[in-house]
Amino acid sequence: MSLIVCKFGGTSVASPERIKKVAQRLVMRKQEGNDVVAVVSAMGKTTDELVGLAAALNSDPPAREMDRLLSTGEQVSMTLLAMAIEARGYKAMSFTGRQAGIETDGTHAKAKIVKVHNERIMEALERGYIPVVAGFQGIDANGDITTLGRGGSDTTAVAVAWGIGADVCEIYSDVDGVYTADPRICPRAKKLDQISYEDMLELSGAGAGVLQMRAVEFARKFDVVIHSRSAFSDVEGTYIKEETDMMEEAVITGIAHDTSEVKVTIRGVPDTSGVAAKVFSALAGNAVSVDMIIQNVSEDGLTDISFTCPGGDLKRAEETLSRVLPDIRAREYVVDRDIAKVSLVGTGMKSSPGVAAKAFSTLGENNINILAISTSPIRLSVVIDSAQVAEAVRCLHSAFGLDSDSVFEETQLSAEEIAAKMNKGR
Amino acid sequence: MSLIVCKFGGTSVASPERIKKVAQRLVMRKQEGNDVVAVVSAMGKTTDELVGLAAALNSDPPAREMDRLLSTGEQVSMTLLAMAIEARGYKAMSFTGRQAGIETDGTHAKAKIVKVHNERIMEALERGYIPVVAGFQGIDANGDITTLGRGGSDTTAVAVAWGIGADVCEIYSDVDGVYTADPRICPRAKKLDQISYEDMLELSGAGAGVLQMRAVEFARKFDVVIHSRSAFSDVEGTYIKEETDMMEEAVITGIAHDTSEVKVTIRGVPDTSGVAAKVFSALAGNAVSVDMIIQNVSEDGLTDISFTCPGGDLKRAEETLSRVLPDIRAREYVVDRDIAKVSLVGTGMKSSPGVAAKAFSTLGENNINILAISTSPIRLSVVIDSAQVAEAVRCLHSAFGLDSDSVFEETQLSAEEIAAKMNKGR
Repeated sequence: MSLIVCKFGGTSVASPERIKKVAQRLVMRKQEGNDVVAVVSAMGKTTDELVGLAAALNSDPPAREMDRLLSTGEQVSMTLLAMAIEARGYKAMSFTGRQAGIETDGTHAKAKIVKVHNERIMEALERGYIPVVAGFQGIDANGDITTLGRGGSDTTAVAVAWGIGADVCEIYSDVDGVYTADPRICPRAKKLDQISYEDMLELSGAGAGVLQMRAVEFARKFDVVIHSRSAFSDVEGTYIKEETDMMEEAVITGIAHDTSEVKVTIRGVPDTSGVAAKVFSALAGNAVSVDMIIQNVSEDGLTDISFTCPGGDLKRAEETLSRVLPDIRAREYVVDRDIAKVSLVGTGMKSSPGVAAKAFSTLGENNINILAISTSPIRLSVVIDSAQVAEAVRCLHSAFGLDSDSVFEETQLSAEEIAAKMNKGR
Repeated sequence: MSLIVCKFGGTSVASPERIKKVAQRLVMRKQEGNDVVAVVSAMGKTTDELVGLAAALNSDPPAREMDRLLSTGEQVSMTLLAMAIEARGYKAMSFTGRQAGIETDGTHAKAKIVKVHNERIMEALERGYIPVVAGFQGIDANGDITTLGRGGSDTTAVAVAWGIGADVCEIYSDVDGVYTADPRICPRAKKLDQISYEDMLELSGAGAGVLQMRAVEFARKFDVVIHSRSAFSDVEGTYIKEETDMMEEAVITGIAHDTSEVKVTIRGVPDTSGVAAKVFSALAGNAVSVDMIIQNVSEDGLTDISFTCPGGDLKRAEETLSRVLPDIRAREYVVDRDIAKVSLVGTGMKSSPGVAAKAFSTLGENNINILAISTSPIRLSVVIDSAQVAEAVRCLHSAFGLDSDSVFEETQLSAEEIAAKMNKGR
């Protein structure tokens, strides 16, 4: 008998029919002899609709009101799920973030969990209930409702799992685990049975959307085992946990890609000390998350500086550069939106030299031009033309021995569900 | 400078555009120098939609979960209204039932307010905020969310007005006050400047839908002045307050009608003692609200007993009669749905004999047959054929000198708004 937390995202509870299926699954886990706690997101597009209503009334809504507004989404799904469980003859009780004891700091819209008071959940479990906890929300020291921001519900699930000492935190979604690459562009991708926190974090950071980085970070910090699995099948998914000997076999664990970044090149920059510092401190001051930086060789005392950043930060980046460029006497800046970042990730890279050389030669043999490179001890990222991203992932996947014997067959995902996966919310 | 509570129903906050208008009105009242507290219902049909979702999952949803689910409706509208007020440059802060200090008993779905803790609202007012309070909800001694049932938001508004010692509780709706009769069927109806609690309660009880009886009862008990007025115009509406000398001029204050009742006749009832008691205690035991009772003269030891009850109670009434009739050896029962109740209401009736005689002769002259009669010290009700209800109201309205010099011109109400008025929710 285990104590498990089961987290279901918005797609899994988007309609009464789907909520019934979730209830059925929870009851099944209970019948197997487990103690079960559910954590849910808001139904389908509820959060987007609430954001839209708020935007229609106030272009800069007060954070306290916004958090309180958004928190209603999970309060609806949690009560409906509790009702659906009761309809199957099992006892269920819903808990808001407040009642589940999720204490956060006071940073509305992106609050951090500071404590989990587990008393009420434990008491409900002891009385035979399936507690259903609203994801994404907590309460600050003033008693005001806070929300956790993107990835919030996954983080709630991991935090509750930690707070009650669960054996595993099962995160159900529309994908059935973590793959060596995105099966939609790499048909020979393999599902991983397990992956270390470190590799998972690098993959998530490099664009793999299956789990929110923040939840994985929380899980690593507090040693919570995550099981990422499908809401639509009973197949085992991928366990995310401490690195084990078995995991170390492969040099490369997986390949992630990300087409959401843009590249900005500043031309004709005087090659004097302090110029780069001025540019990048101004960008940081305007909340632009600079990813890679490439500085070319100087010619005639002038140089070019390129950097990549999320497409969502581009507007702020352009504002910043328009302001800073005259100051540093640079000529101009140009934006390239058609780029993609492909990243090889693996803890095994630490002890295996030659990964970069092999990656570069593989890409070269396939006529894929590298625009920029960045590395960490367990990751190698290259920026390429976005038109070549699928080809790049496939040839690297083969070259590093990740190919599955069987070609990936299309899953049961609908086009809508794939779109949801591409654009994962909280 | 006054302290006022302004309550807006679901129709008034059904869309972002309407919420903006409500915010504009609240700001106007504030600019006039008043301290203002808003109370809101859920947007439009939200509550019905939530009830529908619950019904799809559980035919008998747990009351605690249901109340928590329904309470989200007002939490959405209150935050949106607060945002809309802030967008106009005024400070606003929303309050759930819990935060507004609305303490109730633990009867989920129809909780009774037992106390109003005004501290947080008063503090927000002192700090210059417009507090926006969620109607319809409170919190019980266990800290669980409760809802107040039908008329709940009006009741919240009156309770808050009492709790903070407001000068007036303004209840905004899609009608601009209390009329001597329903203007839709009686074009010479007049709007009343003021009406006593007693008359208002009788009119509401007799079918006038403008205010919920429960809120009026609460207001009478705690002496809260209500101002019933239009959400769509600035015209003064009707004040509901303690009876004053000025009010006593008219014998009849107004005429209400109600087509929602049905008449049930039990035929061939043995005319022995205790039979009626058996029938009506069985009906009461099955939650049938019997309104009027008519017992005919006995013939051959058999008699007929008729009663009226709300159409919504008919199913339970029929169940009860099917069970009880064999027991009392009555022959059968028949149901007449095509009836209407027309009621003359006026505190002045107490000191004016002859009202009944005048009413009966007026109806007789107009060939309107009376099926049943009931009276209270300040009300006379007759049951007639529902096809004649408009004619009955108009001829009585004239006969008792209530006719306005001007014919009522259609208000700016849309068909949708009239439908909403006909079918008032909470």
